[in-house]
Amino acid sequence: MKHLLTLRETSATDIRYLLDTATAFHEILKRPVKKVPTLRGRAMITCFYENSTRTRTSFEMAAKIMSAEAINIAVAQSSVAKGESLKDTMLTLQALKADCIIIRHPASGAAQFAAEHLNIPVVNAGDGRHEHPTQGLLDLLTIRQVKGEIAGKTVAIVGDIMHSRVARSNIWGLTQLGAKVRLVGPRTLMPYDADRLPVEVFDDLRAGIEGADVVNVLRLQTERMEKGLLPSLREYSRMFGVTTASLKAAQPDVLVLHPGPMNRGVEISADVADGKYGVRSAIEEQVTNGVAVRMAVLYLLMSAQGVATPEIQ
Amino acid sequence: MKHLLTLRETSATDIRYLLDTATAFHEILKRPVKKVPTLRGRAMITCFYENSTRTRTSFEMAAKIMSAEAINIAVAQSSVAKGESLKDTMLTLQALKADCIIIRHPASGAAQFAAEHLNIPVVNAGDGRHEHPTQGLLDLLTIRQVKGEIAGKTVAIVGDIMHSRVARSNIWGLTQLGAKVRLVGPRTLMPYDADRLPVEVFDDLRAGIEGADVVNVLRLQTERMEKGLLPSLREYSRMFGVTTASLKAAQPDVLVLHPGPMNRGVEISADVADGKYGVRSAIEEQVTNGVAVRMAVLYLLMSAQGVATPEIQ
Amino acid sequence: MKHLLTLRETSATDIRYLLDTATAFHEILKRPVKKVPTLRGRAMITCFYENSTRTRTSFEMAAKIMSAEAINIAVAQSSVAKGESLKDTMLTLQALKADCIIIRHPASGAAQFAAEHLNIPVVNAGDGRHEHPTQGLLDLLTIRQVKGEIAGKTVAIVGDIMHSRVARSNIWGLTQLGAKVRLVGPRTLMPYDADRLPVEVFDDLRAGIEGADVVNVLRLQTERMEKGLLPSLREYSRMFGVTTASLKAAQPDVLVLHPGPMNRGVEISADVADGKYGVRSAIEEQVTNGVAVRMAVLYLLMSAQGVATPEIQ
Repeated sequence: MKHLLTLRETSATDIRYLLDTATAFHEILKRPVKKVPTLRGRAMITCFYENSTRTRTSFEMAAKIMSAEAINIAVAQSSVAKGESLKDTMLTLQALKADCIIIRHPASGAAQFAAEHLNIPVVNAGDGRHEHPTQGLLDLLTIRQVKGEIAGKTVAIVGDIMHSRVARSNIWGLTQLGAKVRLVGPRTLMPYDADRLPVEVFDDLRAGIEGADVVNVLRLQTERMEKGLLPSLREYSRMFGVTTASLKAAQPDVLVLHPGPMNRGVEISADVADGKYGVRSAIEEQVTNGVAVRMAVLYLLMSAQGVATPEIQ
Repeated sequence: MKHLLTLRETSATDIRYLLDTATAFHEILKRPVKKVPTLRGRAMITCFYENSTRTRTSFEMAAKIMSAEAINIAVAQSSVAKGESLKDTMLTLQALKADCIIIRHPASGAAQFAAEHLNIPVVNAGDGRHEHPTQGLLDLLTIRQVKGEIAGKTVAIVGDIMHSRVARSNIWGLTQLGAKVRLVGPRTLMPYDADRLPVEVFDDLRAGIEGADVVNVLRLQTERMEKGLLPSLREYSRMFGVTTASLKAAQPDVLVLHPGPMNRGVEISADVADGKYGVRSAIEEQVTNGVAVRMAVLYLLMSAQGVATPEIQ
Repeated sequence: MKHLLTLRETSATDIRYLLDTATAFHEILKRPVKKVPTLRGRAMITCFYENSTRTRTSFEMAAKIMSAEAINIAVAQSSVAKGESLKDTMLTLQALKADCIIIRHPASGAAQFAAEHLNIPVVNAGDGRHEHPTQGLLDLLTIRQVKGEIAGKTVAIVGDIMHSRVARSNIWGLTQLGAKVRLVGPRTLMPYDADRLPVEVFDDLRAGIEGADVVNVLRLQTERMEKGLLPSLREYSRMFGVTTASLKAAQPDVLVLHPGPMNRGVEISADVADGKYGVRSAIEEQVTNGVAVRMAVLYLLMSAQGVATPEIQ
């Protein structure tokens, strides 16, 4: 594994190895002194063409815990504003002696493009509507932690599938590991190629989550309203909002995930978000697992040993 | 002490202990190699909903000198812009494995609210018009350094008291340690509850600073003009600008403080700011003391030992 | 050497010493573990009044490789927006216990002004149209690496000389080390004082680069068009764009430099930028040399030893 660009093209073996490594690193996060020298003297540069506190901070925390340097570039404030090409920006970061580049970009395929021009590892932190593989991995890790096993489970992904790179990475990661995936949402927010994906499609919430072991609720970008894809937030919430009531159709021990940030009261009710009334939601555990997953990814891509078992000190 | 939210609710004993700890840490700042391993493997996240170079940089410097990781979030560029609630943002930062959150927020009470939802320490770096306790502590430390003792001293706080969280934290900290506090400024900039505060109120500069041991000059937010609270900058400067002339009413060895950034020629004359003509101003010492105070706060909140004597290595 | 403000006022001896030191540090950049303890416990603050990813990141990388703390202040988001004077901002950063300030500012002379008010070293990272000495040094280092010797070489600087601090630092650095400098560009983009500089001036590209050993292509700020200084990008590109064809007038082994970010197809063709058809361009090497040069500058200004040979561990 040289880069992490998609889960679609990451083998089940590599995904399992990443999850195992993340599980080992997760132990470090429970210590009062969260610091290992594993990546000392290596430098990660995050280069974000879209804003994201959560993902950027998660990578930064992961790097720092492993003693790597973390340098952040918010491209809105950078020379890219001056019209530099993506290729030249990437070559510059490599020439600045980055050991790994984490890129988020509004164009699908941007991370792949960067990887083709660089000798150093590239991690896709979200490219357009394409993929967000570390989010997919942290969702997988959370399901495995709570459910023990991913194979054979039914996972319903609910919401704006069309615009969601989180959904794409979930679909590929989950099916690689043997889960059944359902896409649930209004037809206007389904991807055009849904029939070519290894999924079942539902435009009714209750039918879609019936018997599901996991419900992964996507954030509703309220900007979608403006484009005429949805009638109103209230309408969306009434039809597709995940509540304690709608969850009754799912398995009794259904696990609820959300990639954040949440619109409480829109795509997810506050009760479900907070895990009230016996609902098993794992939204904060997902965030912590995100740090563990990114530690694993940085370790596997940046350490000289490559695929050796993590040497946790 | 679990959090630092206000000086009003911090006991005189705790304030003195913080000042003593800051005094110990101040020694480190004089060394050529300013680095102690005290907080190695702990991570501080600053989460600023308002811009502040001075305070944010001071916390970052304090953390780094103590070998803690410092991660900065400027909320204007973050997912909060996407409508995430303060509670969810705070829970996310905790789940990212922050060991301490430093929050600045335009709403009074935001830090208290954050603390109620978190298991990790919260430091209020300014909440609305409410409090800015580390600024209060650094003012106390500066007075103690120069005057030897705070009890019994008369401190005049001059300017826009109504909108000033610095004034609030000064009032509570100073009175807890036995100083007499005067508020001096135009009536339009006095807080509505001034008569319920343990202070004397003056709307005449000379009367207000007569015999004062310390004059703490507040920054005049020029935005106040627009709201009709002041006739003009020139008028304000003529009536309440602290100059070498107006200081003649105070004690001959009066100490002048200013939290910065200064509007030279408005609330404070350049001569006074620069300590000319025998004026004892301590504006740069305040900045350095700010680093020492924040080291003390981070140490007491984040170190495992809790309230043990700082182990300075 | 207390500060690095200009190359004009840096002696040839000091420039050579900086290049030798940078050459020594360049070796560290080839290691898998790029970390030396040289500046442990020292803090560099970058204070940028203009955006620059490239230069800011280069300084940050240089500091971190040497184990110094790097704190970044983007002034657009800072208290300077609140009207604080440059002098007060600088004194505040010093009082925050910075050991070195890196300043970029739109006003020519700002770094000099800062240095006059501070006891700590100041590095000019670009001030108005005046100088950008670390860029000048990295260009010198790149020429020396490729050509072996700078004295006696002919260097053509092509483009918008008038607005370019890079051109200014090149002119002074190159002539101090014995190179011959030509300025090549449209008359509307020549500095008014060109006849008082130690250069030859050309308004024809081919004449200007005839027999040149080095061609340093400046970025064309497309904003210049709006001011009527240029007819159009296409016109500029046709007259002054450096291409494989126009380079035939130069020495066969001509070295092409560009400070970045490039406007491919405007001031430089993609073929030349990418070093195709036997062209020797060194644009990525320049970026790496920038890190090495900044390590040397930080080392010489911040280490206690001052001018001792770098102790690389």
